[in-house]
Amino acid sequence: MRFATYTANGESFYGAVADAGMIALNSAFPQWPTLLDAIRDGGLAALGRAAEGRDVTHREFAYQIPLPNAVRLLCVGVNFPDRNAEYKDGSEQPKHMSLFPRFLSGFAGHEQNLVRPPESHTLDYEGEVAVIIGKAGRRIAQDDAYDHIAALTLCNEGTIRDWVRHAKFNVTQGKNWDKSGSLGPWLVPFTDAAQLDEARILTRVNGEVRQDDYLSRMLFPIRRQIEYISTFMTLLPGDIIVTGTPTGAGARYDPPRYLKPGDVVEVEVAGIGVLRNGIEDEVL
Amino acid sequence: MRFATYTANGESFYGAVADAGMIALNSAFPQWPTLLDAIRDGGLAALGRAAEGRDVTHREFAYQIPLPNAVRLLCVGVNFPDRNAEYKDGSEQPKHMSLFPRFLSGFAGHEQNLVRPPESHTLDYEGEVAVIIGKAGRRIAQDDAYDHIAALTLCNEGTIRDWVRHAKFNVTQGKNWDKSGSLGPWLVPFTDAAQLDEARILTRVNGEVRQDDYLSRMLFPIRRQIEYISTFMTLLPGDIIVTGTPTGAGARYDPPRYLKPGDVVEVEVAGIGVLRNGIEDEVL
Repeated sequence: MRFATYTANGESFYGAVADAGMIALNSAFPQWPTLLDAIRDGGLAALGRAAEGRDVTHREFAYQIPLPNAVRLLCVGVNFPDRNAEYKDGSEQPKHMSLFPRFLSGFAGHEQNLVRPPESHTLDYEGEVAVIIGKAGRRIAQDDAYDHIAALTLCNEGTIRDWVRHAKFNVTQGKNWDKSGSLGPWLVPFTDAAQLDEARILTRVNGEVRQDDYLSRMLFPIRRQIEYISTFMTLLPGDIIVTGTPTGAGARYDPPRYLKPGDVVEVEVAGIGVLRNGIEDEVL
Repeated sequence: MRFATYTANGESFYGAVADAGMIALNSAFPQWPTLLDAIRDGGLAALGRAAEGRDVTHREFAYQIPLPNAVRLLCVGVNFPDRNAEYKDGSEQPKHMSLFPRFLSGFAGHEQNLVRPPESHTLDYEGEVAVIIGKAGRRIAQDDAYDHIAALTLCNEGTIRDWVRHAKFNVTQGKNWDKSGSLGPWLVPFTDAAQLDEARILTRVNGEVRQDDYLSRMLFPIRRQIEYISTFMTLLPGDIIVTGTPTGAGARYDPPRYLKPGDVVEVEVAGIGVLRNGIEDEVL
């Protein structure tokens, strides 16, 4: 079962994704105006039951990001072997994971174009798995961490690379350009540890594989991410953790291979899906 | 005129602050369920007119943060003379401002206690002015920047100091502990450039002045902040920018003077108010 937020005929809906289109579920669940409300109430299983046997509502639609009204999204940085070395700054692998928030405004939905701004042509891709928290918790033990995940999705954690290094101690301004990244295409309920533990993530640009790695090789595994983050903040249903990207972003090539209009980026994990986005130049 | 969000008799309200208490305004504006909705509709002046001549609704109440459902808050770091030197890392003053998001969950309201967690006793204060965006804009010119500010408030940008340096390139985990900082006490409409340009900010701990500076001495003035941030993201009504703290945080003393239970921190700007918070240890 897959759940998406989308627009059709100028209106916003959420529903279950079928081969022929979308099965709208809003009207069946007036208590949950958005997919985020369903997540907050632990409602994915109920949505799934409601979708069974229903006809497709919309055959023409456009994907939005799965949880457009989510409030908190945290990204984990420098989380695969050799990623620290890619920075070429001579620093040691840090003892703790790097974390940075991104605003949801920085993401486009599946099959929407990412936007390259006129200020910089260093738009870069980073394929990642995102986990959606389904159960609140503080100081969550690693053994319990997976119990707090409701669903999975994919992220192209797109970055304006040269703006990441503008300032002293953060990456904010390179990571929050309007529609510089993407989330989606949909949410897949998380029901089996193997969905993460055996996941292989691939990023392709125009069909060429640029990133290819296994989540099991993360320096800071997802269980540890949930433990660490929940040490300082109470995780809440609807929170999103973008869990880290493998080596192979465009900035790491010599010369760098940044994204340009007409390129198509795909992030793929078997069992979750393929998140696909074109690139366009911003028109001022 | 001052506008606050608060709780009374177990319910949440917003209203105008009077000497004798709160003038609740929710019921007069059903189209604006929260103060954030009023900000989004440019409604502060209408709230002010509605409050004139009304009696106080609540004499007993507790402050919440002014916009508890705000979505995006960005802090400006290292923004007063000598602040970069305080880091003692030998680095040059960066060319661009440092920026980091904070989640609203990290803030308590006026006269609520800040929470010192058991994991670290390095809770520190940072007094700052926060501006609330009232008008959307992208690539806003410095000359126009003040037109996009609806209101001002104060921030104690409280920090768990040793967690700021856990990782490679960000300060996220030291800046987002539940209720480690505060916002408030209320919003003051921004109607005159002098409210910022002539503002002096003071931070006191148990009555002793620890920070004392003028916003006019900022390395990256608020006009420039709005210009720079709106280069990469469309600023929206209700966005909050926390504009930077002067020298004198507790970490800069030798030995450091961190906050401990029983301390009282006050952040004051004439014309805005005094934001006051005690400190308590978290009870697990």
